[in-house]
Amino acid sequence: MAEKLVENITAMEDDFAKWYTDIVKNAELIDYSSVKGCMIIKPAGYALWENIQRELDRRFKETGVENVYMPLFIPESLLQKEKDHVEGFAPEVAWVTQGGLEPLAEKLCVRPTSETLFCDLYKNDVHSYRDLPKNYNQWCSVVRWEKTTRPFLRSREFLWQEGHTIHATYEEAEERTVMMLNIYADFCKDFLAIPTIRGRKTDKEKFAGAEETYTIEAMMHDGKALQSGTSHNFGDGFAKAFGIEYTDRDNKPHHPFQTSWGVSTRIIGAIIMVHGDSEGLVLPPKVAPTQVVIIPIQQKKEGVLEAAAKLKEVLKDYRVKIDDTDKSPGYKFSEQEMRGFPMRIEIGPRDIENGECVVVRRDTHEKQTVKLEDIASFTGRLLEDIHNDMYERAKKHLEESMYDAVTYDEFKKIMNEKPGFARAMWCGNVECEDRIKADTTATSRCIPFEDKSEISKTCICCGKPAKHLVYWGKAY
Amino acid sequence: MAEKLVENITAMEDDFAKWYTDIVKNAELIDYSSVKGCMIIKPAGYALWENIQRELDRRFKETGVENVYMPLFIPESLLQKEKDHVEGFAPEVAWVTQGGLEPLAEKLCVRPTSETLFCDLYKNDVHSYRDLPKNYNQWCSVVRWEKTTRPFLRSREFLWQEGHTIHATYEEAEERTVMMLNIYADFCKDFLAIPTIRGRKTDKEKFAGAEETYTIEAMMHDGKALQSGTSHNFGDGFAKAFGIEYTDRDNKPHHPFQTSWGVSTRIIGAIIMVHGDSEGLVLPPKVAPTQVVIIPIQQKKEGVLEAAAKLKEVLKDYRVKIDDTDKSPGYKFSEQEMRGFPMRIEIGPRDIENGECVVVRRDTHEKQTVKLEDIASFTGRLLEDIHNDMYERAKKHLEESMYDAVTYDEFKKIMNEKPGFARAMWCGNVECEDRIKADTTATSRCIPFEDKSEISKTCICCGKPAKHLVYWGKAY
Repeated sequence: MAEKLVENITAMEDDFAKWYTDIVKNAELIDYSSVKGCMIIKPAGYALWENIQRELDRRFKETGVENVYMPLFIPESLLQKEKDHVEGFAPEVAWVTQGGLEPLAEKLCVRPTSETLFCDLYKNDVHSYRDLPKNYNQWCSVVRWEKTTRPFLRSREFLWQEGHTIHATYEEAEERTVMMLNIYADFCKDFLAIPTIRGRKTDKEKFAGAEETYTIEAMMHDGKALQSGTSHNFGDGFAKAFGIEYTDRDNKPHHPFQTSWGVSTRIIGAIIMVHGDSEGLVLPPKVAPTQVVIIPIQQKKEGVLEAAAKLKEVLKDYRVKIDDTDKSPGYKFSEQEMRGFPMRIEIGPRDIENGECVVVRRDTHEKQTVKLEDIASFTGRLLEDIHNDMYERAKKHLEESMYDAVTYDEFKKIMNEKPGFARAMWCGNVECEDRIKADTTATSRCIPFEDKSEISKTCICCGKPAKHLVYWGKAY
Repeated sequence: MAEKLVENITAMEDDFAKWYTDIVKNAELIDYSSVKGCMIIKPAGYALWENIQRELDRRFKETGVENVYMPLFIPESLLQKEKDHVEGFAPEVAWVTQGGLEPLAEKLCVRPTSETLFCDLYKNDVHSYRDLPKNYNQWCSVVRWEKTTRPFLRSREFLWQEGHTIHATYEEAEERTVMMLNIYADFCKDFLAIPTIRGRKTDKEKFAGAEETYTIEAMMHDGKALQSGTSHNFGDGFAKAFGIEYTDRDNKPHHPFQTSWGVSTRIIGAIIMVHGDSEGLVLPPKVAPTQVVIIPIQQKKEGVLEAAAKLKEVLKDYRVKIDDTDKSPGYKFSEQEMRGFPMRIEIGPRDIENGECVVVRRDTHEKQTVKLEDIASFTGRLLEDIHNDMYERAKKHLEESMYDAVTYDEFKKIMNEKPGFARAMWCGNVECEDRIKADTTATSRCIPFEDKSEISKTCICCGKPAKHLVYWGKAY
């Protein structure tokens, strides 16, 4: 039985894409539904999202963000008010054309994102500098009619949060844009043990309607990038398109400045592809719905289940589950590994006699014997260690998968042969990005905030003077 | 200014419906949107929903419920599988007919409720008695294309939770159905200070596809009923329609039994209409996003804002806000009353000198002077008292608005002249319900669980032998 569970999973080295979907299915995170391209998020998957929500929501509220709920539908005329925005989204939205038994006078799209709805609200609510800023956020689902879909990474409906703020000055909007990006990066590091690269998107890769888009990019096991959170500064473009004005202290009308920022269930894909291994999911302790699974050995023998229950009680500060089903211990081990619970405790008659238990880490498979009287403090330290070690391993992988390219041949060789990102200079022209994409399928991931190296003087692609260092990579 | 806020509200006695929408708008709970029939839930409204969610979710999980997320869309063919269900819902759903630039091969409805999707999942996941029960729930929005809409009470999109469970036996399903109804009733009492009547719906008022529908009915200030939560036992009807089967210990195939149960943002309408008064919203302390508002008096004088901040620190176990805006104290009082914060503390230079503060209850307007050293324990007791008093007042109103009817003339007189419910016997035939509705606009609210009185031997409407005591009322 134990082997069967593992057999279900394709080896990561053989077929990374299949390994991914095998994990998603076998760890029971999602299921496919009768609705093509839409996924069912099952309890093990949704519990991850609930933990992500709780932690992000807390961090948002600490900065004065308030939650709201906007309508699911956007009238066609409202979606069309901002030109770049509608061009970006109209081709991939779902349209409601009938309500009840009647055709609608104006068709409604199912929100792909809610900038236009927030603008509609702000137009009614923002009149004076006293009404600013408004720092709103909503947790909801959005719909984008994708042609090819993959669980968590790309689906026709997904869950996310979308923050939408409005400010008196460009500087304040910019500050909020960067603040939220930093919250995302810190959250990935502190809560998901995922290192990310913070940076600015090129014009080609910006959000439809944004003046600036900032991004955090994470690197998966296979060297591909996953854009894991974005934060946009809209300037006053939306305010102008929607006619939002406020009267400032100078008694004159001004257009306010807006931002939006979002993280979606996609981030669960990052958890899987950054930390997972050949035995299944490996969950960072802070986001894991179950942090410790206790597996009783010879559980029918007197005192074993009682000892397991007592352990659970001692570990009441952690999320602990006892697996006392009638499956064999071997099957339980394998199942726990598949589900990615960070720490396993085995306790049987001999352990009880010796006043100890056996602890196994999910990430390293390392096994230790621990005195029962020490287990509470040991667990706290171990979960902390697991988090830190997972982060360090992911960081090492990221750093070791970055390659510098000076010539275009070097660049193509890296992109075609080495999984990872290329660091290379760029002239700032979209034509070079287009050519690089055509030649290698790689895209500009970002102009990094922290890395200001000048690898060469000229654009990797056209040879003209370089303007920026760009990180390039293939992406999900 | 203070008067202006109150002036905005229509008197409850003059026009209850207008009073209601005035409160909703002036307490900034919702706003109308460009999407007809859909509402924007603003921060003050959404914070109520977040508190409701947190508490209900905790109570659900204590009984073993797990959260999931199902797709937003239901293919037409899936919706049609259960005959009664589709008849109930098809006339009021919104249809997506176009995805991206292409028309869809099969139109999709935006979920009005998700029984059919859960059945589709259970068909794949339930094979053996070992797979049962499954106790799933989701928090989401649903869409019903209503013709006339009112904030919270009836809108084309609303937020709710829908629980969907599946069991090996009818008895177990019935136990879950009743358990969830009781959770709803306890929640209304303990958390919202709203008394409800638990009972069974007649066949006419049942949920489309249910074998039994149980309900909690609350009474609003105007004597009308608001159905505040329902719990349905589907028997094995859906399992048969969807071909869900499991192999029991007898090695034979059986159809499992299902339930569903839900509470929606409608319940916020109940909070408003059970507790609100002529000055605005009155929030029960446990659900109130702000429980205590501190209003500094002469706040520019030395030490006042510091004393307010210290009070907030002392009251850190409660949700406390200081209103240190530059509005006048009178305006702040009026605004706090509109928003319904349960308790107000006023603190000014003379109070500080005397080592005291002034406390005002929102529900009774009662004013007391409290020693600063006692304020923490005083606040705990007062919030408890406010909750209990609000519940008792609502209960008294409910009890005093129940009238017994023995003859049909009495019944009609009650329904036409007295706001409240009529207790009257019924033969069990839908024809009598139809006639009562035509004559009085009242509907059968429920066959109460706890009240087994036999008011007369014959049906209030047709005079044939009576089968049940029914509570009748006009309803939202």
